Amino acid sequence: MSEHSLCPKFEAAFEILGKRWTGLIIQSLLNGPRRFKDISEMIPGMSDRMLAERFKELEAGGLIIRHVYPETPVRIEYELSDKGRALQPVMEAVQEWGDSWIQPNCPDAKS
Amino acid sequence: MSEHSLCPKFEAAFEILGKRWTGLIIQSLLNGPRRFKDISEMIPGMSDRMLAERFKELEAGGLIIRHVYPETPVRIEYELSDKGRALQPVMEAVQEWGDSWIQPNCPDAKS
Repeated sequence: MSEHSLCPKFEAAFEILGKRWTGLIIQSLLNGPRRFKDISEMIPGMSDRMLAERFKELEAGGLIIRHVYPETPVRIEYELSDKGRALQPVMEAVQEWGDSWIQPNCPDAKS
Repeated sequence: MSEHSLCPKFEAAFEILGKRWTGLIIQSLLNGPRRFKDISEMIPGMSDRMLAERFKELEAGGLIIRHVYPETPVRIEYELSDKGRALQPVMEAVQEWGDSWIQPNCPDAKS
């Protein structure tokens, strides 16, 4: 990488990750498919309108897949694609940094 | 980490990283201290007003240190603190993900 410019792929990656809530949404989906309200409950500070917007962006970017199950009532779930799941090492690195450098305790963190 | 909530440290980490430009600014400083205009040139899409705001936030969060050298003209440099430099594994994980999953080529990437 040249001294005076950033890698376009790095920039593009942070176009996605550098949006409020996106990292938290991806983290919330790492344990498997979830419904809209599951994610909404896991991230209380985020409005449903914002979550709907982020889901659309992440689906358009190929990071999540929206499954519609034709049941009654219809069931809709969101799942990480391979591209989305591939962000797990990023999320783990963020968690490790947070564990080391962020002050408030995480009462039930694994480590 | 419980199934239905996110770790507060993870959330706090993404409060920082999930802001537009922050990841790029930190990446730009990983090679050593830089002046305002160096970073401004490395991230052409970002306004100077935004960079000034991000520098203030990152300084307040303890991620960067602002050095003022009493020369003529005065020289001001920004440097990552230990806390800021500790984000290097995050940045590397983001780069790896970008290399694997983002389409446009990075002409001069190391790998």
